[in-house]
Amino acid sequence: MIKPYFPAEAGAPPPLRVRVQREVRFEEVDPLNIVWHGRYPGYFEDARVALGARFGIGYLDFHRHQVTAPIKQMFIEYHLPLQFPDKFTVEGILHWSEAVRLNFEFIVRDCQERVVTTGYTVQLLLDRSGQVILVTPPFFCEFRERWQAGALQ
Amino acid sequence: MIKPYFPAEAGAPPPLRVRVQREVRFEEVDPLNIVWHGRYPGYFEDARVALGARFGIGYLDFHRHQVTAPIKQMFIEYHLPLQFPDKFTVEGILHWSEAVRLNFEFIVRDCQERVVTTGYTVQLLLDRSGQVILVTPPFFCEFRERWQAGALQ
Amino acid sequence: MIKPYFPAEAGAPPPLRVRVQREVRFEEVDPLNIVWHGRYPGYFEDARVALGARFGIGYLDFHRHQVTAPIKQMFIEYHLPLQFPDKFTVEGILHWSEAVRLNFEFIVRDCQERVVTTGYTVQLLLDRSGQVILVTPPFFCEFRERWQAGALQ
Amino acid sequence: MIKPYFPAEAGAPPPLRVRVQREVRFEEVDPLNIVWHGRYPGYFEDARVALGARFGIGYLDFHRHQVTAPIKQMFIEYHLPLQFPDKFTVEGILHWSEAVRLNFEFIVRDCQERVVTTGYTVQLLLDRSGQVILVTPPFFCEFRERWQAGALQ
Repeated sequence: MIKPYFPAEAGAPPPLRVRVQREVRFEEVDPLNIVWHGRYPGYFEDARVALGARFGIGYLDFHRHQVTAPIKQMFIEYHLPLQFPDKFTVEGILHWSEAVRLNFEFIVRDCQERVVTTGYTVQLLLDRSGQVILVTPPFFCEFRERWQAGALQ
Repeated sequence: MIKPYFPAEAGAPPPLRVRVQREVRFEEVDPLNIVWHGRYPGYFEDARVALGARFGIGYLDFHRHQVTAPIKQMFIEYHLPLQFPDKFTVEGILHWSEAVRLNFEFIVRDCQERVVTTGYTVQLLLDRSGQVILVTPPFFCEFRERWQAGALQ
Repeated sequence: MIKPYFPAEAGAPPPLRVRVQREVRFEEVDPLNIVWHGRYPGYFEDARVALGARFGIGYLDFHRHQVTAPIKQMFIEYHLPLQFPDKFTVEGILHWSEAVRLNFEFIVRDCQERVVTTGYTVQLLLDRSGQVILVTPPFFCEFRERWQAGALQ
Repeated sequence: MIKPYFPAEAGAPPPLRVRVQREVRFEEVDPLNIVWHGRYPGYFEDARVALGARFGIGYLDFHRHQVTAPIKQMFIEYHLPLQFPDKFTVEGILHWSEAVRLNFEFIVRDCQERVVTTGYTVQLLLDRSGQVILVTPPFFCEFRERWQAGALQ
């Protein structure tokens, strides 16, 4: 069983999920013939970017609203290795949070659906001067209202 | 204050420390003009490799003893950004553990000695068939004895 | 018009072609907001790997026959930039050669089919001791016979 | 003998040279246990950045004058492999050109001074609107005058 990185908040809508397909690239593999552990932040980002694109909260959406959302924390657990040229999927799961932050969970699975890697990232929103945003900006409010209303899939 | 990722075990010898100097490379920086968060596993590795080389527990030493030491967990906290071409240091700190594992803590500091990133990795030892090693191998026993005796610096 | 990196040899069969689809990843972009020039060797490799997989001359095929095929030369011309998250294609084109070598040409095109980058790589075959192979190995002979006979597509 | 990528122009001052020291990082090595061919653009850049910093024509200098200098061509020849954790040097050699361009040659040498890789890059200067600059900008004129006068070392 995969332990919950982000325990569900009471009354929170179900998390948003996007799954992307990938293949291990030759350059991602190390001399031990397994994917180097430092490639997984990029794998996670593939799913984060896909989810952002689908629901309108991607890097370019933030940029348009003069906001950035840098990673503040990242955690990765390595269960099984991947090898060249394995096919795998990366599921990105955005969990609801009352705070102005993005709590992403990630599950990497091999072609047999075995969980090979799990992890999470936490992002805060910063304004143009680099200050942490504590009051939810309008575009992000709207995103959360649609999520709460079940309008996002 | 930086919270202890690995609380000190009673009777443990002080951790081993190595510090390496680096400079942000152009290719490590993202469109937000800061080092992309996924480069830090490589920064951590620069210190881990340096410590392994100094104390005889590097990748090649393990290889000679037919052991691998893959990363099982990695955690990173991003406090301040780095930019091109900032100079910075990475301190790798190996904490004592009674278990057959490597508990590494990392502290990235900018040229003003401000802590910009912290984190840790946990490595297990695997034998040639990929099984977790539970009994400390002789070469690793010897390394620990010298550490315990204060013979490593 | 794109100039021919590898002028056609008389009597040579038409080149083999494979085209892969990609999307610019956030980590591939530099502070100038364009794909860093050093990412293109990886883009080329995506097409080289796909062609190798389709026609049985990939890294793992070589490995099975105890042969390696390292890159000896690489040339890249940058015509137009790519940005995040542009979609693009990479065409890998294997040109016939009488010598024991792999002459690959590459064409990167954006979503409007504009040529953004072109280039080539040259690979030699090495045996287990790292010596250049001058006499075509049997499995490679067979590959070339099928190519010559028009059996590969 | 290394063939001249950029034949000397008559009356040209001697090229500018900078040499940087590096060590192969674990993540730069591929499953064949040699540095993956696509890492060399980054090695070249280490020398290009160092030369730019020393002589005032780096990325940030260009940025200050609202100019960019993207790579238009890159060529790499691989003579010998590098392995983890080999020490090596990268020499960047800026050749004089009457045109508004940067002609860089690179020589990577191992710790025994054997030439392992050579190559070159060609950069054009672009203005803020992305147009190629044909008339040498003042700051670049000044740099060339000092070079011509032998004031740069």
